[in-house]
Amino acid sequence: MNFKRFLPILQWAPKYGRSQATSDMVAAVIVTVMLIPQSLAYALLAGLPAHIGLYASILPLVLYALFGTSRTLSVGPVAVVSLMTAAALAPLAETGSPEYVAGAILLAVMSGLMLTMMGILRLGFLANFLSHPVISGFITASGIVIAASQLKHILGVQASGQNLLTIGQSLVVSLGDTNLPTLLIGSGALLFLVFARKQLKPLLIRSGIGSRLADILTKTAPILAILVTTLVAWLLQLDTQGVRLVGDVPSGLPELTMPSMDWGLWQQLAVSALLISVVGFVESVSVGQTLAAKRRQRIDPDQELIGLGAANLGAGFSGGMPVTGGFSRSVVNFDAGAETPAAGAYAAVGIALATLFLTPAIAFLPQATLAATIIVAVATLIDLPALGRTWRYSRTDFGAMLATIVLTLVHSVEAGIIAGVVLSVGLFLYRTSRPHSAVVGRVPGTEHFRNVQRHKVELCSKVTFLRVDESLYFANARFLEEAVMDLAAGEPELRDLVLVCPAVNLVDASALESLEAINERLKDAGVRLHLSEVKGPVMDRLKRTEFLSHLGGQVFLSTYEAWQALTDSRGPLKDVA
Amino acid sequence: MNFKRFLPILQWAPKYGRSQATSDMVAAVIVTVMLIPQSLAYALLAGLPAHIGLYASILPLVLYALFGTSRTLSVGPVAVVSLMTAAALAPLAETGSPEYVAGAILLAVMSGLMLTMMGILRLGFLANFLSHPVISGFITASGIVIAASQLKHILGVQASGQNLLTIGQSLVVSLGDTNLPTLLIGSGALLFLVFARKQLKPLLIRSGIGSRLADILTKTAPILAILVTTLVAWLLQLDTQGVRLVGDVPSGLPELTMPSMDWGLWQQLAVSALLISVVGFVESVSVGQTLAAKRRQRIDPDQELIGLGAANLGAGFSGGMPVTGGFSRSVVNFDAGAETPAAGAYAAVGIALATLFLTPAIAFLPQATLAATIIVAVATLIDLPALGRTWRYSRTDFGAMLATIVLTLVHSVEAGIIAGVVLSVGLFLYRTSRPHSAVVGRVPGTEHFRNVQRHKVELCSKVTFLRVDESLYFANARFLEEAVMDLAAGEPELRDLVLVCPAVNLVDASALESLEAINERLKDAGVRLHLSEVKGPVMDRLKRTEFLSHLGGQVFLSTYEAWQALTDSRGPLKDVA
Repeated sequence: MNFKRFLPILQWAPKYGRSQATSDMVAAVIVTVMLIPQSLAYALLAGLPAHIGLYASILPLVLYALFGTSRTLSVGPVAVVSLMTAAALAPLAETGSPEYVAGAILLAVMSGLMLTMMGILRLGFLANFLSHPVISGFITASGIVIAASQLKHILGVQASGQNLLTIGQSLVVSLGDTNLPTLLIGSGALLFLVFARKQLKPLLIRSGIGSRLADILTKTAPILAILVTTLVAWLLQLDTQGVRLVGDVPSGLPELTMPSMDWGLWQQLAVSALLISVVGFVESVSVGQTLAAKRRQRIDPDQELIGLGAANLGAGFSGGMPVTGGFSRSVVNFDAGAETPAAGAYAAVGIALATLFLTPAIAFLPQATLAATIIVAVATLIDLPALGRTWRYSRTDFGAMLATIVLTLVHSVEAGIIAGVVLSVGLFLYRTSRPHSAVVGRVPGTEHFRNVQRHKVELCSKVTFLRVDESLYFANARFLEEAVMDLAAGEPELRDLVLVCPAVNLVDASALESLEAINERLKDAGVRLHLSEVKGPVMDRLKRTEFLSHLGGQVFLSTYEAWQALTDSRGPLKDVA
Repeated sequence: MNFKRFLPILQWAPKYGRSQATSDMVAAVIVTVMLIPQSLAYALLAGLPAHIGLYASILPLVLYALFGTSRTLSVGPVAVVSLMTAAALAPLAETGSPEYVAGAILLAVMSGLMLTMMGILRLGFLANFLSHPVISGFITASGIVIAASQLKHILGVQASGQNLLTIGQSLVVSLGDTNLPTLLIGSGALLFLVFARKQLKPLLIRSGIGSRLADILTKTAPILAILVTTLVAWLLQLDTQGVRLVGDVPSGLPELTMPSMDWGLWQQLAVSALLISVVGFVESVSVGQTLAAKRRQRIDPDQELIGLGAANLGAGFSGGMPVTGGFSRSVVNFDAGAETPAAGAYAAVGIALATLFLTPAIAFLPQATLAATIIVAVATLIDLPALGRTWRYSRTDFGAMLATIVLTLVHSVEAGIIAGVVLSVGLFLYRTSRPHSAVVGRVPGTEHFRNVQRHKVELCSKVTFLRVDESLYFANARFLEEAVMDLAAGEPELRDLVLVCPAVNLVDASALESLEAINERLKDAGVRLHLSEVKGPVMDRLKRTEFLSHLGGQVFLSTYEAWQALTDSRGPLKDVA
């Protein structure tokens, strides 16, 4: 057993020195400042009390540092997973109720178990079936839904809904109840954050601050917004004006929490937990790979599953919500110079300290401020031009992407992602079931053979050469039968048919049966079937069967050899333009 | 609109002459003789009153003659579909009850609608996902279950069950109730039919009868067994001895029947109807293609869906059960010289006459005789050596086949076929998600490049050539990222990486994103990405994107060109054995 593989900390901890510790600690301080508002905001987005977000940012970070393979991934609550958590729990319990919180904890535990199992079974490849257009469409649509869902906090009204239609309807109905002080706080925070994101960095640079420091200062804007609005809310006693604050948060570290053992609840949440696991994994691995590659490091996707699984189990058992590796925080962690996963563990210490000492202050934090930080954060996720790019590049990919976006917007995140996966796998299977094949002829005077429809080549009316540009397996085996029999039915003079196989990497049992059927049918029709340019491994397999002894014709090493053997002076040569 | 395509009868009817009519009528007589016992037997197998089988052999044959494309397919009740019908209805109603019969009629109508819709939408390719090993395993296992299910009729006991375990248990419990006269009739018929199948034909040939006539006479054995045992049952009044007879059958032609409009029932039967449709379609198309090819004719799978859909709608609306093209009858029809689908219509007339005039006699037909004809018929479906052949050829195919067989035997036909399809698609996706790729080097002194692990080739430590042997799409896009980044991480001196793409027929949007990511990550690591031997259509697509302007390196027409441009005297050449 390879301990270093299953416990990646063993790879870096023995060589851990003072300079690395310094770099990691600096990064941890910056990430902590960013993680505090994000934890609170994403808990709010998930419909949970704010402190659940903090709980999900302590133990998971430590566990990921032990089991994860990315040196710079920042694990914790993220926007899309929080939205999916809210969508999964909304039908089951009232937002924020004890049953709702218990559901979030169970989702984290189930997601942790699923990810860990997938890692142990090495099922990381399953994430591949979430194609880029589907993921991109899903994240764009989720971003739009998330932003819409936060408008109620900016306006200070009650509203609900899990998709654009229900959220929009609910907002329109309650627009009249808008709370002016809340709107001022919310839109003020929003404007400040947009300004910080768009203009603060150039301004700082112009005022003589270094580019990297300016970047980091810009990233502290959310915590600044929180400090200022909290102070204002406390000084002006805004809660008496109808401004909703985060309210009392239990002080102290999270305690060991046991997940619900209600089997019915487990069943109800199973699909949601699976989707949260896969989406979280894909998001996390994309970020992790991008950052690792910049330093020529590697991450191991199957071990990442175990790392994220441990993190989610940690989140669940310490009363937190589902977590994964977040994009923006990880980039900040990387840019701030984190060198090992220890940076994550140090950030956990930072959050633990915040949980212990800052919670009295958090009580005065307006929810509108958190909503503003969410809206600004998810705005970067929305990538509508991707629709146009995908449309121009591939209509099938566009179809899967559009279905994902539309269903996510008008129905639910789960319907969106399932439709996307089913459609992209279906379109893929459809495409592979109709492989490209071409009748080829000899380029005059050479040993080369080319598609008759694209090149001027020599043909022989009694011999047809059919090149198949795909491996042969059950999905296209019958298609091959049809293609060959169509050819044979259309060429009454045909005596020999050569399947040219340089692109055939595999012939599975179904395709073998089809080849047997083609051979027999051609025999019945008085045509001999030959093969040429069969790859070594494919030939080895065919030799284990009786196909070669049934074969009406021969197996030729090269197509030119077949041409020489089969087309002699008998056959009139046809020229095709 | 192409009428000839949607109404294939227009293709042959205008040229229909006397000689064809004679051939068709001879074939129709022989098929009718075979179809009468089969119709009755398969109705019994489906748990339906015997006359339902006759009803399903009149209108469907006429409709298939109008809409079907096979000239020789014999449509009607078949064993596997009848078993699936029984399996679908068993949980819903008591065998043979009016609700049960209504369920069978609804299954035929739903299956007819589904097949017609699939035909109109040109979804015939969906049947490709039923791989040969899955179909073969399914038919073998179904044959075993069918044979086992008929033993109760041979023994004259009451028994039930939808899989080997429940049938076996039920038989063991009731073994003590065996009815001796039934056992004599049943085993006598069984022995006679086995003898007829194995030895009668050689015997007839030895006694001077021509081979073809001997063959046809052999095929009449079931009707002979029926005549004799019916006569014996009538003469000896065997029903008073506890021998179960078919009993009174309504005389006269079927009347228009409206299917149930109970929406709940439609939902309950939806999956079963879909499976019956697909399995029936696959069985029918395989037979149809095999026979058509012998005469260099073609069948159109999408139009076949419409033909079979019409046949099933006809079956349902005339009070019959689900039908499809049967293997043994179609072969007999072909051998007997049927030239056009009119043969099927004439056979329908034969069955109609039997329904009008033979039903009083059918009342005395022992069920044990029908059971014997079923057992002998399905024995030919059981192909256990296929397991060994598949095992030797491909472990993945064997896995899908074994799962299908085991689940069909111990659980149900539906579980078996679903497991088979899911497993074979899953294994296929898994396989394509890990495409073959190889680092290639130059064969010394030539312009050819070969796998470094198989050939002695030249390499350059600063340039790596990676050949990818598969189209690039979402299922393997991330795999490519990993393969390339692993390579880059393992070669610290690397400055240029060339992706050699002659086998890449497609680059979808996900793979394009991966190529972009690979390009960016390699840039970050100081490595230029190049492409070589990109196919025309793939290049056309890439030109529509910004990828080529981002590309760190170049696109080379040939790999040798890349070799010349990138490896100069700078790099030390490595020789690899």
